[in-house]
Amino acid sequence: MAQSQSSGPLRGLRILELGHFVAAPFATRLLADLGADVIKVEPPGGDPVRGWGEQIDGKSLWWSLHGRNKKSVVLDLKTDEGKRAVLDLAAESDAVIENFRPGQLEKLGLGPDALRAAQPGLVIARISGYGQDGPYRNRPAFGVIAESMGGLRYLTNHEPGANDLPPVRVGVSIGDSIAGLYAAFGVVAALWRRDRAGGSGRGQTVDVALTEAVLSMMEGMLPEYGKLGKIREPSGGGIPTASPSSAYPTSDGWILVAANSEPLFAKLAALIGRPDLPTDPRFTTNRLRCQSRDAIDGIIGAWTRQFDAATASQLLTAADIPNTKVFTAADCAHDPQFRDRGMVREVEDPILGEVLHAGIVPHFPEDPGAIRWTGPAVGAHTAEILASLRRDPTDRAA
Amino acid sequence: MAQSQSSGPLRGLRILELGHFVAAPFATRLLADLGADVIKVEPPGGDPVRGWGEQIDGKSLWWSLHGRNKKSVVLDLKTDEGKRAVLDLAAESDAVIENFRPGQLEKLGLGPDALRAAQPGLVIARISGYGQDGPYRNRPAFGVIAESMGGLRYLTNHEPGANDLPPVRVGVSIGDSIAGLYAAFGVVAALWRRDRAGGSGRGQTVDVALTEAVLSMMEGMLPEYGKLGKIREPSGGGIPTASPSSAYPTSDGWILVAANSEPLFAKLAALIGRPDLPTDPRFTTNRLRCQSRDAIDGIIGAWTRQFDAATASQLLTAADIPNTKVFTAADCAHDPQFRDRGMVREVEDPILGEVLHAGIVPHFPEDPGAIRWTGPAVGAHTAEILASLRRDPTDRAA
Repeated sequence: MAQSQSSGPLRGLRILELGHFVAAPFATRLLADLGADVIKVEPPGGDPVRGWGEQIDGKSLWWSLHGRNKKSVVLDLKTDEGKRAVLDLAAESDAVIENFRPGQLEKLGLGPDALRAAQPGLVIARISGYGQDGPYRNRPAFGVIAESMGGLRYLTNHEPGANDLPPVRVGVSIGDSIAGLYAAFGVVAALWRRDRAGGSGRGQTVDVALTEAVLSMMEGMLPEYGKLGKIREPSGGGIPTASPSSAYPTSDGWILVAANSEPLFAKLAALIGRPDLPTDPRFTTNRLRCQSRDAIDGIIGAWTRQFDAATASQLLTAADIPNTKVFTAADCAHDPQFRDRGMVREVEDPILGEVLHAGIVPHFPEDPGAIRWTGPAVGAHTAEILASLRRDPTDRAA
Repeated sequence: MAQSQSSGPLRGLRILELGHFVAAPFATRLLADLGADVIKVEPPGGDPVRGWGEQIDGKSLWWSLHGRNKKSVVLDLKTDEGKRAVLDLAAESDAVIENFRPGQLEKLGLGPDALRAAQPGLVIARISGYGQDGPYRNRPAFGVIAESMGGLRYLTNHEPGANDLPPVRVGVSIGDSIAGLYAAFGVVAALWRRDRAGGSGRGQTVDVALTEAVLSMMEGMLPEYGKLGKIREPSGGGIPTASPSSAYPTSDGWILVAANSEPLFAKLAALIGRPDLPTDPRFTTNRLRCQSRDAIDGIIGAWTRQFDAATASQLLTAADIPNTKVFTAADCAHDPQFRDRGMVREVEDPILGEVLHAGIVPHFPEDPGAIRWTGPAVGAHTAEILASLRRDPTDRAA
């Protein structure tokens, strides 16, 4: 494998991305953030995700982040030269991450058998909507459908009967990103197995389905249904088993208050001038408060409504009650903790100038990795990479 | 390290959990599902999460899943014996995963220095609300607060002005689980670095903050704000840049329909008896449809409303239009794809009998791991584990 110039715990790894849209590129962003060298293969027109979201002069702001630390190589996988180059790249890679529809890579002659003929140690992560087998295998995959099938969308709603609006989307492609994170985890697990002392050197396949990635997050939903026939229901801004804990209105946005222990509830009651509440028979225990949720939330909301969010938050924080403004993009961008930890940082983009990026998660204090460069132009590294492949293999090994 | 009897790519690893509630135990569940041996240290009363959610005879259904494949050891970390046992266990472990408040382990004399004195190769993953340093380090952490600070809660809402209800919680502790998944990824990345050929043998620290784990999922939110001052806004059931794509009402629940390409929109228009729609000047392109979202969603909703969800889904699927009922627990439990892939499966629990569990994600077809046992009783393995520690170290090595 090529010697890496990067830092981070995964430096020295080489990952080939045959991906598009969100899930596979998110997985490779995570690996690249921790130091892996990632080569992204794109079709002649580029990954369609480059056209998503806000643009400046045709340059995508999201792409600056989504494509960071990767090299972009344009290849036409329908041509023999394109296929040959993919196999040559696979021969020098530790892992391939792809999110074509199941069967598509095989149709192109780039299935696991062909890739492993080029490199027997290759780990291959395949991300799809429903998995590589089973009756739904061939159905088209969309993140919103996976979130709905995994049980997440049903719960992202107000209490039954609260209104007739549909359950809401989380606002980002959370199913895709969670699947991408699972793929990154699976790839590193397979590489640990391959590369540890006494390891087989063999690369495994990792099969990640968006639907399953979402379902795996659903806590006690399945055991509770299976044993008690209980269908978990949405609970709006609150938590079914904790009160008070919800988002409350202020004059300029929502504030999240979590005061669902007895000491916290007593502090909150004192703060809002209602020291009678903890002895009110409706509110003496968390269980009772959950049953009288509307009443207690109404009282708290009437108090928060008098202030702007910053003032309400100051008062609550001074009283030692866990709270936060419900952060918008602006709040995240200016938050002192995110700034202090490098989790919101300015990054220099050669075309866009200074761009705000999210930092590197998880944080390795002793070897944190780096944002080496922002999302490159389509094919920015095609010449460099193809030249390296054309060199004599003996040279390459050296 | 002790020889493992398990299967899965992480067999042979030994993980010590000093965790409680959701995030750290979710991380160890993922590692144990892939074959790692996990020892969970609990206080004399047990992890409080055992009391959360629905119970049968005092046994938690969620715990059956949340605690699966782990051994439970009760230790009082405030006593010298308890501390000694933790250090002895650390000496035989590859990684520790903890989610105490920052500084708490150090106060107990069980900080990284003490743990690494027992085992220099130890990887230590620390999960907290805001991270191990920075101005908010000492604030109490709650999942709902992290989701709000990371920008997720603000977007989980209807369009501004659609109603006056608060933005909704996702319905599960998604911030905790995403942080747990990042911790599992970070631990395996650190172990790959430690254990590969030529590795240093040194264990690194992995610092995971719930707030940061959420923020890292927010796609182009930060770059778009930083460059254009644009604050991403919630968009209810839909996607701001795709139409039609939303949840629509049926007589017995919501159905998700994603027909936001021209061919899919034409198919949908034909199916609902409105072949005029694709040439209606309001709807000829995706961009125009996004601007006339209420109109197009109203027309589609009037059609879906005539059917139950199963019938609507059959009609849409026959017309090749991506759709799914918005799944409840019951729908997930009976889905043929989840069943076929083992992603919904019955597991034998010694106390609860047959319990429904989510399967193992990601799926390793060649070495899938196993659900070896369900969440054990508090301290079920205390005697066994303490006896193994008391044995002569020479015996242990053998």
